[in-house]
Amino acid sequence: MSKKISIAIDAMGGDNSPDKTLKGIKLFIDKIKYNSDIVLNIFGKEEIIKEKINKYKINSNIINVINSDTVVSDEESPMTAVKNSKNTSMWNCIKHQLDGKSDISLSAGNTGVLLVISRMILKMMNEVNKPALAGLWPNQNGMNVVLDLGANIECSDQNLVDFAELGSALYKSLFPNEKPKVSLLNVGSEEMKGTEILKIASKRLKNLSSEENFIYNGYIEGNNIMSGQSNVIVTDGFTGNIALKTAEGTAKFITKNLRKSLTENFISKISLIFSYFSLKKFKDKLDPRKYNGAIFLGLNGPVVKSHGGIDAIGFYHSIDLCYKIVKGDLMSEIKKNLKHSKSVQE
Amino acid sequence: MSKKISIAIDAMGGDNSPDKTLKGIKLFIDKIKYNSDIVLNIFGKEEIIKEKINKYKINSNIINVINSDTVVSDEESPMTAVKNSKNTSMWNCIKHQLDGKSDISLSAGNTGVLLVISRMILKMMNEVNKPALAGLWPNQNGMNVVLDLGANIECSDQNLVDFAELGSALYKSLFPNEKPKVSLLNVGSEEMKGTEILKIASKRLKNLSSEENFIYNGYIEGNNIMSGQSNVIVTDGFTGNIALKTAEGTAKFITKNLRKSLTENFISKISLIFSYFSLKKFKDKLDPRKYNGAIFLGLNGPVVKSHGGIDAIGFYHSIDLCYKIVKGDLMSEIKKNLKHSKSVQE
Repeated sequence: MSKKISIAIDAMGGDNSPDKTLKGIKLFIDKIKYNSDIVLNIFGKEEIIKEKINKYKINSNIINVINSDTVVSDEESPMTAVKNSKNTSMWNCIKHQLDGKSDISLSAGNTGVLLVISRMILKMMNEVNKPALAGLWPNQNGMNVVLDLGANIECSDQNLVDFAELGSALYKSLFPNEKPKVSLLNVGSEEMKGTEILKIASKRLKNLSSEENFIYNGYIEGNNIMSGQSNVIVTDGFTGNIALKTAEGTAKFITKNLRKSLTENFISKISLIFSYFSLKKFKDKLDPRKYNGAIFLGLNGPVVKSHGGIDAIGFYHSIDLCYKIVKGDLMSEIKKNLKHSKSVQE
Repeated sequence: MSKKISIAIDAMGGDNSPDKTLKGIKLFIDKIKYNSDIVLNIFGKEEIIKEKINKYKINSNIINVINSDTVVSDEESPMTAVKNSKNTSMWNCIKHQLDGKSDISLSAGNTGVLLVISRMILKMMNEVNKPALAGLWPNQNGMNVVLDLGANIECSDQNLVDFAELGSALYKSLFPNEKPKVSLLNVGSEEMKGTEILKIASKRLKNLSSEENFIYNGYIEGNNIMSGQSNVIVTDGFTGNIALKTAEGTAKFITKNLRKSLTENFISKISLIFSYFSLKKFKDKLDPRKYNGAIFLGLNGPVVKSHGGIDAIGFYHSIDLCYKIVKGDLMSEIKKNLKHSKSVQE
């Protein structure tokens, strides 16, 4: 019998937790109930969590509640996190993972603190210089992996090459039937464009491009991130963060104005009756909750950060993401990629 | 009598020119026909331009055609531009402006070449280190000025401070009844966020913030560019280019999927009958042609670059932009801002 997939969940992080997290857990369990190969290790105040499990009538067969009396505060800075976060629900998740009792950790709590304590407890992989935050982003053909989204404000060419390896491994674990196609985000597609660091990284990625590893597609501009021509978009954390948030802001601006237009008068309101199902499908496709979960890559184990303000459905999607990452054996994919790179004479 | 507003237009640059540019000129003249305070100096092959003026029945009262036999090629690189672009329609526009015969130049031709020859002919202002490309971007309350959009891949804190001065002067010239509110684009709003260069620039902008100059609003994140809280968004050319193109790509992705949803079946098509006018208003607000025209700032005179692929309506908007810039006396606003800055003990 194969080993069970074991997910450590910090039930206390983020807005409206643990109600939000436990409702998300219920959604997940209801969808995968036929599957007994999963264990959810839930960290938080045991009494409260058990009360919520009863309240929301959660099937607790695959649940394992582990008491943690304290919670990481939203005001905590990464600087003091190590001192003040010991034995919090977040800390205990990562510790559980380090001890081999969970395969992955998930929290909707303080991002900075999660990054610091994950790195401190799980440690960096020997082959990787800096960890990266990767996210999912819709594209015309399905889904992109984009990294780094803000863990590293400044990056070397080595960091960008590492991110390509890590990101394409993540892509393979999530979409085992697809091929990762890597692009470097830049201000133009010609070779002469961009910073010196990008030019060196691009040359190195060209050498590493292969069927087993990833196909390198060259530079990509911001307007093509969602075109589907590449599905692993590599950039430094400053640019990635600006790009992701600009896309979010643009989407919000457009949908807000669209909603306003479609409800501004009686006639346009009638149109909503006829377009209800079509607009619902449109909205579903763009629903940010589906893309909830940033994956912390480069450590000796994967850690997922759920958006703090997301609701139960969003949290459900981040649990599902954890499940897919472990099922797709991300860590093996990463090791395969890195081994392949080392073997290539650049 | 006040001096006429005189605009130099390169009729030959961009796709489908000179048809596109002359149709744009016709739209402009038709809208401002009551206004005899404007002169349009049109550069290109005289014979062809005069033929198009007849063909499109353009009122030529305020038109002055100036022959230029050659055109800057789209394949020309900025490196060889100076040698190969002399006496092209683009070159002659800028030269006309240098000679004081035009107040501003407009071209839809090769961006790199336009930047190089504008800088060479008009020269940098003494007070400014690097020129910037500024663009217009819709926000919830109206319009943003965003710069730099790609003229400078790497920027110092001094460049960013200059961009704030230039951008807020542009904002004042375009929207004389509004106050410029400057923000620096960053990965977070807290003081500790971002690169060292951003931190220094932010401190300096805080000192320069004043009622006459601009109000400095601190950092802004990508998701708030369009919120309207600030209206002059300052960033380096790499980040600005990525942000602008990512927003364009996101808008295109969303509207494409929306269109698909609303036309996928008979019922949803019916909805279009009822929402036609509302959707038209929505589309008009987001029409990228309205924001056509990047303004090259920091030289001894303003130069506007129209998107090469835009149609006649888009080109019309860039002529209108030139008109507003001169009417709003951009160069005086820039000088006022720079003088104020120099007088402030930082």
